[in-house]
Amino acid sequence: MEFTVNQIAGMLKGEVQGNGQEKINMLGKIQDAKKGQIAFLSNPKYEQYIYTTQASAVIVKKDFQAKKEINTILILVDDPYSSFTLLLEEYHRAISYQKSGTEEPSFIGKNSVVGKDCYRGAFSYIGHNVKVGDNVKIYPHVYVGDNVTIGNHTILHPNVKLYADTKIGNHCVLHSGAVIGSDGFGFAPQEDGSYKTIPQLGSVIIEDHVSIGSNTVIDCATLFGDATTIHKGVKLDNLIQIAHNVEIGKNTVIAAQTGVSGSTKVGENNMIAGQVGFAGHLVIANNTSIGAQAGISKSITEEGQRLLGSPAFDIKEFFRSYAIFKRLPDLNYRLRELEKKTNANNNVSQAQEIENDE
Amino acid sequence: MEFTVNQIAGMLKGEVQGNGQEKINMLGKIQDAKKGQIAFLSNPKYEQYIYTTQASAVIVKKDFQAKKEINTILILVDDPYSSFTLLLEEYHRAISYQKSGTEEPSFIGKNSVVGKDCYRGAFSYIGHNVKVGDNVKIYPHVYVGDNVTIGNHTILHPNVKLYADTKIGNHCVLHSGAVIGSDGFGFAPQEDGSYKTIPQLGSVIIEDHVSIGSNTVIDCATLFGDATTIHKGVKLDNLIQIAHNVEIGKNTVIAAQTGVSGSTKVGENNMIAGQVGFAGHLVIANNTSIGAQAGISKSITEEGQRLLGSPAFDIKEFFRSYAIFKRLPDLNYRLRELEKKTNANNNVSQAQEIENDE
Amino acid sequence: MEFTVNQIAGMLKGEVQGNGQEKINMLGKIQDAKKGQIAFLSNPKYEQYIYTTQASAVIVKKDFQAKKEINTILILVDDPYSSFTLLLEEYHRAISYQKSGTEEPSFIGKNSVVGKDCYRGAFSYIGHNVKVGDNVKIYPHVYVGDNVTIGNHTILHPNVKLYADTKIGNHCVLHSGAVIGSDGFGFAPQEDGSYKTIPQLGSVIIEDHVSIGSNTVIDCATLFGDATTIHKGVKLDNLIQIAHNVEIGKNTVIAAQTGVSGSTKVGENNMIAGQVGFAGHLVIANNTSIGAQAGISKSITEEGQRLLGSPAFDIKEFFRSYAIFKRLPDLNYRLRELEKKTNANNNVSQAQEIENDE
Repeated sequence: MEFTVNQIAGMLKGEVQGNGQEKINMLGKIQDAKKGQIAFLSNPKYEQYIYTTQASAVIVKKDFQAKKEINTILILVDDPYSSFTLLLEEYHRAISYQKSGTEEPSFIGKNSVVGKDCYRGAFSYIGHNVKVGDNVKIYPHVYVGDNVTIGNHTILHPNVKLYADTKIGNHCVLHSGAVIGSDGFGFAPQEDGSYKTIPQLGSVIIEDHVSIGSNTVIDCATLFGDATTIHKGVKLDNLIQIAHNVEIGKNTVIAAQTGVSGSTKVGENNMIAGQVGFAGHLVIANNTSIGAQAGISKSITEEGQRLLGSPAFDIKEFFRSYAIFKRLPDLNYRLRELEKKTNANNNVSQAQEIENDE
Repeated sequence: MEFTVNQIAGMLKGEVQGNGQEKINMLGKIQDAKKGQIAFLSNPKYEQYIYTTQASAVIVKKDFQAKKEINTILILVDDPYSSFTLLLEEYHRAISYQKSGTEEPSFIGKNSVVGKDCYRGAFSYIGHNVKVGDNVKIYPHVYVGDNVTIGNHTILHPNVKLYADTKIGNHCVLHSGAVIGSDGFGFAPQEDGSYKTIPQLGSVIIEDHVSIGSNTVIDCATLFGDATTIHKGVKLDNLIQIAHNVEIGKNTVIAAQTGVSGSTKVGENNMIAGQVGFAGHLVIANNTSIGAQAGISKSITEEGQRLLGSPAFDIKEFFRSYAIFKRLPDLNYRLRELEKKTNANNNVSQAQEIENDE
Repeated sequence: MEFTVNQIAGMLKGEVQGNGQEKINMLGKIQDAKKGQIAFLSNPKYEQYIYTTQASAVIVKKDFQAKKEINTILILVDDPYSSFTLLLEEYHRAISYQKSGTEEPSFIGKNSVVGKDCYRGAFSYIGHNVKVGDNVKIYPHVYVGDNVTIGNHTILHPNVKLYADTKIGNHCVLHSGAVIGSDGFGFAPQEDGSYKTIPQLGSVIIEDHVSIGSNTVIDCATLFGDATTIHKGVKLDNLIQIAHNVEIGKNTVIAAQTGVSGSTKVGENNMIAGQVGFAGHLVIANNTSIGAQAGISKSITEEGQRLLGSPAFDIKEFFRSYAIFKRLPDLNYRLRELEKKTNANNNVSQAQEIENDE
């Protein structure tokens, strides 16, 4: 790609300060961009670099006031970060290998239908009675089980595995090694100490605009007709465990290595950090925010809470308690000192009581 | 499938109350089952639904006493939940795609033998000198390394990876992305700060009736002739880490994202929750129960303990300590108040002592 | 392999005590080795076994002093453990299936070059413009995206996935299910509560002598030209999460199930235990040692620290605090007792003050 600063400013609805005819052919970071590149300044921490950057142009906030001389062209916008991500997207679209067609060998079962403008990589496997929408990218080593449905514009990266009966919406992205629809962990204890497997007959539904990270696992529901459900706009990071019958509410974001136990219903617009664990059969309110490594053992009924600890409670209270936890040896020492003094006082008092009594 | 209520009652050795000729063609949940479906009532929490359910029949406990009028047929049994799972199994058997035969392209090495009634999916790979028993299902993208042995009736879901020399028993189920037999994490520190790899020459033995979840990893033992061993009836959930030379005792159940470090021997009939971590070289007694996110840093010698915390100790004591942890700021405040009072008392006492002395 | 004790002693530059002509054909452990095997004694805990071992020879430390009669041949060396691992390596080299050549079907794209003495397993996929060095082993079901570079003597175990533009050095080992270069977890919140995906355009660089465990995930950097970087000699265990723009310093070792959040820079020669979590945008000093399940929420500026807890602090202080945490109910009880006494004293003191005043 090569654009003039003016063309880019046009795309971003920004105002140019400097030579609008300068050529831009690459994106870069303000601290190490070179001539021909465009960077952005959003975080004030990086302001120092705008006075020394080699970038041909920098996207800045409308109200930016330079404190020293600037040698780069400026594009003034409302939100430099958003503007830059918009450019990134355009760039991505331009350079992406627009994979399409079918590489051989690949496998497709009976009664399966694949839409227009799709890509099917070598060694990809599509079972029987599968419906794939338009403009779907199925990379090499992807496994699509029988009766699966996939919407339009969805990307299955190499080695995604969809068990039979899974339903995936439109505009979803699933990363390598994600497993959708494996058996839930259900075993009935027997009298002899062994366990009998409870058949897992449900499925998984993944709604539109969902993103699923590498090696994340989502188990199917237990009962026929039920589905573990990931609602619209949910973003799941890598190596996450979603157990059977779980429901994740709209636009909830979960960071890596978090686990949600069976039948728990996580609300909408939750922000859940990494390595969090949820017990089973809970209901978590909307707009809950949960810190890293927290353990959620009870349902959260009030919206908008921020939680930390295992078991988790209010994050501010947790930090107050933890600050004292770190000083417990000192606390213990002070308590011992008090005990000594009090016992001494007691003895004095008792002595005095005796004296006074005399 | 379509059965009469009488036929189902016969299978379950239950007693019918209502029209035994009614037709049943599907399983359902008591709260949303429809005509033609059969549901069950086990948890008293759901009793309300039996008075309104549309299910044609409901399996209930022998001693169930209705508090209102019931419009559905009842099948009375000893244990409704077990009876229902029995039906589920039958149903599963009936509807399962009975995969069999070999899809092409698939790969099979020299001197490898596959038993009767097996399925080998497209793009499955079987190395050299492999022995596969009867009625084994090897799904697409499964990798079976050289010299592997697999018993009868075992299922390897898509993309299971068995490194060379692994031994798998009968009636095992391995889910997608499970990796068995990868190198243990063994590195010898060198004087220059770098690490030298210690070759991992052992293998993995998985006994009968073991279930292994998606993306779970079991490393091989270090020394030639040794094996990381998963004993009979063990159930491992998803994303679990089992390090080299570990042994997991009979009928132990481990939930998702738990990790067991090298050479630790977990006893029989343990119940281990999710995200638990075990240090290396421990021995854990039988019938130990470990709560979520616990950290086990010492061997457990006494059977039947219940543990929580990191490092873990008795679960009841943990909760008692944690209750006070949450109130530590208050504790600290009370201690400070006491210090003030005691110092004041002290001054008074000292003053009195002086007075008395005078 | 079959060697005499003298030949092995020569390889190890050790001294023989006993019959140097004895034949050795296998390695074993001192406690259960048989005739024809060689074992080692390094940990004093195992000394008992040297008096009863059936091993034909045992490697011991130069200054080893037997306390009883020994019936096995000894090879005296400076460091028995290192000597034994040297033998293991030789043995490994000898027995390893020296996979080479290309199994079909396999896929290779346009303009891709593969060096000498490589192995390409069946169903392996190499995209376009890929450069593979000499003596590289690419096992079945491996995916190598477009523009990837791989150095010499590197092993990609079955089902390793390398996204486009990844760079892998020499002498690396990647285990099954490892995913390198998947999209970082970057989403910009929108006004309506939904999230917009921030395109992840960077790549991953893995330097020489790096080992990566099964099902570990390393995300690509966000900006074009940036790379998530794993420096020389790093050893990563299984199921680890490395987020976008992370840097792991030379010779750092990380145990299983640990997660490092975006843009964090881990120093050199760190020792990081399992299930540790790092927040994003941190800088961790060299030679830091972090205990299992710790949570690192702040940068570590001082080298050589040992940390534990979540949030983590000095490990010794953590254990001191935790010891008192376990006794908190007792502490609380003592505090209550003191409060009672002090209030009693107070009343006495006040009474006395009144008396004295009178």
